Amino acid sequence: MSIPTAPPSGFRDFLPDQVSLRHEAIVKIQRIYRSFGFQPVATSAVEELSVLVGQGGGENEKLIFKIMKRGEALERAHAEKTDLADLGLRFDLTLPLARYYTKHGSLLPHPFKAFNLGPVWRAERAQKGRYREFTQCDADIIGADSWGAEVDVITAILTVFNSFGLTGVKVHLNDRRLVDQALEAAGVPAEKRGHACVIVDKLDKLDAAKVLAELEAEVGPAAAKTLSGTIMATSAGPEMTAAITKGEFGHLVKISHAVKSVIPDAEIVLTPNLMRGMGYYTGPVFEFRHPSLSGSLGGGGRYDRLTEKFGGQPIPACGGSIGFERLMLILEEMGRQAADAAPDAVVTVFSDELRDRSIHVASVLRAKGLSVDVYPGGGKLKAQFKYADQKKAAYALVIGPDEAARGVVQVKALKTGDEQALTLDEACARIAARA
Amino acid sequence: MSIPTAPPSGFRDFLPDQVSLRHEAIVKIQRIYRSFGFQPVATSAVEELSVLVGQGGGENEKLIFKIMKRGEALERAHAEKTDLADLGLRFDLTLPLARYYTKHGSLLPHPFKAFNLGPVWRAERAQKGRYREFTQCDADIIGADSWGAEVDVITAILTVFNSFGLTGVKVHLNDRRLVDQALEAAGVPAEKRGHACVIVDKLDKLDAAKVLAELEAEVGPAAAKTLSGTIMATSAGPEMTAAITKGEFGHLVKISHAVKSVIPDAEIVLTPNLMRGMGYYTGPVFEFRHPSLSGSLGGGGRYDRLTEKFGGQPIPACGGSIGFERLMLILEEMGRQAADAAPDAVVTVFSDELRDRSIHVASVLRAKGLSVDVYPGGGKLKAQFKYADQKKAAYALVIGPDEAARGVVQVKALKTGDEQALTLDEACARIAARA
Repeated sequence: MSIPTAPPSGFRDFLPDQVSLRHEAIVKIQRIYRSFGFQPVATSAVEELSVLVGQGGGENEKLIFKIMKRGEALERAHAEKTDLADLGLRFDLTLPLARYYTKHGSLLPHPFKAFNLGPVWRAERAQKGRYREFTQCDADIIGADSWGAEVDVITAILTVFNSFGLTGVKVHLNDRRLVDQALEAAGVPAEKRGHACVIVDKLDKLDAAKVLAELEAEVGPAAAKTLSGTIMATSAGPEMTAAITKGEFGHLVKISHAVKSVIPDAEIVLTPNLMRGMGYYTGPVFEFRHPSLSGSLGGGGRYDRLTEKFGGQPIPACGGSIGFERLMLILEEMGRQAADAAPDAVVTVFSDELRDRSIHVASVLRAKGLSVDVYPGGGKLKAQFKYADQKKAAYALVIGPDEAARGVVQVKALKTGDEQALTLDEACARIAARA
Repeated sequence: MSIPTAPPSGFRDFLPDQVSLRHEAIVKIQRIYRSFGFQPVATSAVEELSVLVGQGGGENEKLIFKIMKRGEALERAHAEKTDLADLGLRFDLTLPLARYYTKHGSLLPHPFKAFNLGPVWRAERAQKGRYREFTQCDADIIGADSWGAEVDVITAILTVFNSFGLTGVKVHLNDRRLVDQALEAAGVPAEKRGHACVIVDKLDKLDAAKVLAELEAEVGPAAAKTLSGTIMATSAGPEMTAAITKGEFGHLVKISHAVKSVIPDAEIVLTPNLMRGMGYYTGPVFEFRHPSLSGSLGGGGRYDRLTEKFGGQPIPACGGSIGFERLMLILEEMGRQAADAAPDAVVTVFSDELRDRSIHVASVLRAKGLSVDVYPGGGKLKAQFKYADQKKAAYALVIGPDEAARGVVQVKALKTGDEQALTLDEACARIAARA
C-alpha cells in the first residue's frame, strides 16, 4: 500500500499565503477580544471522554474522534471487553471552558471574560466547505447574568467583522425560553420539545416543507400548524412581540439597543426560528449571517447551567464564537492577502566561497528591521533570481568577487529591473524606502 | 463516576497570564522566522496512521495517540478483527512536512524555506516537565544540499533565543556520518548500529556508566571500549578532528564560522556523542542547550531521505525545532510577563439603567485605541473595583446619574487612588498618557 501524500479526508494542508492570512487574522481577533477586556485561556486538544459526552453537546457528541487506550490499559480493555477509548478530541471550546472554569475559577477575576482561539474536531461526513478540523474563536463571560454580557460578546464579534471590512453582517437574535413557551403553547409534551428544536434547526439546510413534514410526524399536524406560525417563522409574530412587550423578554430589546449604540450600522433581527444546535443554551441565542454565505458566520448564546455538569453550582454564562473557516473563505474570495507575507529582499549566493559574505550582508540588513532571505542552495544566479520572484521579494542582491572586494552590493529592484551598486547603508535605505 | 475538572494526565490548562506570554512568544518567533525568509505552512493535527508509522519517527512511533475508526468502518473492523484505528495525532512536524512537500512541492518556491508552529502529541509516561501535548516551532529548508541551509536554520533559532534575552545558549554540533564511521571503525555490524545510537542517546538521561554497560551488552566489551573514546565522548577526539581536517566534514567548520559571523557570541561545540533521536537524520545534527536546563532547548539536523517514504525522489532537507515549552519555562522562571496583558481601564456600571452609558463610553475610548473592559455583571461598585484590580487595569471609570447628566466620567487611577471628573476627551488623553 502506498503512503498517502494528502491529509486524511476532511482535513487540510494550507499553502504559505493562506497561512499568512490566517496568522494575521488570528492576531487581529486576539487584539480585538483583548481590547474588550477578554483574557486568553487555553485548554488541551484532548479531553477525557467523560467530559465530552453526556448532556450538553447535542448532535456533536456523535462526532467525537475517540482516542484508543494505550499499553496495559488497552490490553485490559480488550480482555475485559470494556471501552477501548478513554480520550477524545474536543468538538468545541465551550465544554472545555466550563471544565476549566470549574477547576480554576478561584484564581480568576469574577466575572471572568475569556477568549480562546484554537482548533476543534468533528467527524462530520466530509463535504465541500465542511471540515473535520476547524478553528473556533470564542469569547465568553462566566459569572454575569446581566444582558450586558450578551452586548459585550456580540459587539466584540461584530467589531472583528468590521475590522476585516465585512459589511452587511446581520445579527439574528432569539431566546430559548421563547421557544419553550411556544412549544408549550402548541401542546407539545416536554419530552418531545428537544427533538422538535432539532427538527426546526434544520431549516438552514433543508426545504421548509420537508422540515414541516418532519415536525408533523414528531408532534402531530395540529401542533405543527401552530408552530409553523411561531418557532418556524423567520420574523417575529404577535406572540413574540407580545412576550417582549410584556417585559419578560425586554432584555432582547436592551441588547439590541446597546449593540447599536456601539456599532450604529449593526442590523439586529429577532428571529423566532433561530435554534442554535447546542443543548446547553438556556436563554438568548444569537447568530451572525452574511449575504454571501448560506450558513452562519458564527453565533452563541447563554448557557447558565453548563458548569453543573462538573459538579459546580450553576453559574450564569454567555458566549459567542466566530466561524473562522468561513471568515477566511470570504476574505480569500475578496482577494485579501496578508501584509507581511513576502521578504523585502533575497540575497543571492555567487559561489560557495562567497556564501559567508551573503550571509553576513543579510544579517546586517535584518538587524535594521528588514526581512531578508539568503538563497539557501547552490547553483546559478538565474535560478536564484527565479527563487526571488517566487518569494515575491521586492529586491534581489548580488555579491560577486568584484562587489565583495569593493565592499558594495548589487541591488536589483525586481519589479523594474533597475540595478545599482550600493554600500550596505545605502542598500538598506533603498530597500526600506522601496525606492 | 464524577466528571473530572482537570485535563487528562500529561495535558495542561493555561491561566490567562501564561497564555498571554505564549501568544506573545509565538508572534515573536513567527516574525523572526519570517525575517529570515521562511514561509509559514500548516498541516492537520491528524494524519493517516500509515503516514506516522514506518521508518523515520524512531522511538516516537510507539507514542502515537491512535484514533478509532468511526461508524460502519469501526463495525467492519470489529467483525473482521482488523485494525480498529485509522488515524493518529502527529508526534512531530517533520513527517507531516515531508508529506506536505511531496504533495504541494510544485506550487512552492524551490528551495522551500518553511516554518510551522503548532502542537504535537506523544503518549509519554507523564512526569514533571514532560507533557503529552506540547508546541513545536520548526524551521526547515527543503531542496538545498548546501551547508548554508544549516546556517540559516541555526541562526534563525539562535536569533529567537537572543530576542528573549536568553544568554549562554550553546550549539552542539555533530554529523550522523561521523557516528557511522566510528561504529564501523569499532567493528559494530551494520544491523546493530541503530540500536547502539539509541543507547548512546540516553547519555542525557542516564549515568554514563549505565550507558556504557548497556552498550557493552549490545556490541561487546572491545567495541564498547573503542566507542567510549569516540561516540561516547563529550568533546572532539583525534578521530573527529582528523575527519574534519581531512575535508570530508569541513562543512561542520564552515557552519560554525558562518553562524558566528551572524551571531558573534554564539558558542558552537563539536559534540561526538550528540545523536538526536530521530531515525531520519542523515548528516549534520545540532542541539541547543542552556545552563538552566538538563535537557535541550531544541535541535535538528539534515534528513535528506525522508521524502522517499512518500514515493518521491530523495530531496535534500534540513530543519530545526525550538522546544517551546522549555523556552516558556525559562521565561516564566525569569518572571517575564506579556506586555499587553491588562486592559487600560475598566468602566464600572452604576445601575442597569446606566449600563448603556457605560457601554457607550467604553466604545468611544476603544475607538481611540485603548483597551477597555465594561464590567459585565450587576451589583455594587465595591465588587466592580475589586474586579478592576483583578484585571490589573490602570484605571476604573464611574458614571453615575450625576456624571451622566453632566457628560463627564469619574476617572480613578487604581495605583494612587487619585480621582477626577473628566470629559470623555480628557479621560482618553489621561488614560493614554497613564497620567
